[in-house]
Amino acid sequence: MALRVVVVYDISDDGVRLRVARTLESWGLYRIQRSAFVGRMQRARMRDLARLLEGMIDPGTDTVHIIPLPSHEWERTLVLGTPWGERRVASAALLQG
Amino acid sequence: MALRVVVVYDISDDGVRLRVARTLESWGLYRIQRSAFVGRMQRARMRDLARLLEGMIDPGTDTVHIIPLPSHEWERTLVLGTPWGERRVASAALLQG
Repeated sequence: MALRVVVVYDISDDGVRLRVARTLESWGLYRIQRSAFVGRMQRARMRDLARLLEGMIDPGTDTVHIIPLPSHEWERTLVLGTPWGERRVASAALLQG
Repeated sequence: MALRVVVVYDISDDGVRLRVARTLESWGLYRIQRSAFVGRMQRARMRDLARLLEGMIDPGTDTVHIIPLPSHEWERTLVLGTPWGERRVASAALLQG
């Protein structure tokens, strides 16, 4: 079964938060919100990603959820407002405007 | 199929964010992170919730994802660090300490 994984996090340290975001991007996930990413992943790799992130965060203050779901359910996700990608395009355009 | 719904949001206005959180709680969802809730829901009710939230947020600045997934997949979610509920208990204990 094609699997998607949604990663949602609350991370207090700016530097750690940036490293986690970069790590998720390097694993092929893309950002859907300020602190949420989604991407395709084999179930076995979820644990590898968890171990990697566990070594970065402060377990006393931070929280990360790595949520598996079938791709066909991800495609039934309802999105309200302005998706993250479009917001960045908009703000980039504003900068050049 | 028993369905869970994860709601993740980026909302700029503090008052709107509080109203959305309260609405999600009143719909029986519980908070898993600062801006993420989860709960059981019939698929048909997802659209009703979406319409309700759409009327609250600013579509130009805010983003909400309403993500459906089977309960058995939610139960395979990996949680790193301190889950939201335990953090509140810890900080409440600190206050009374």
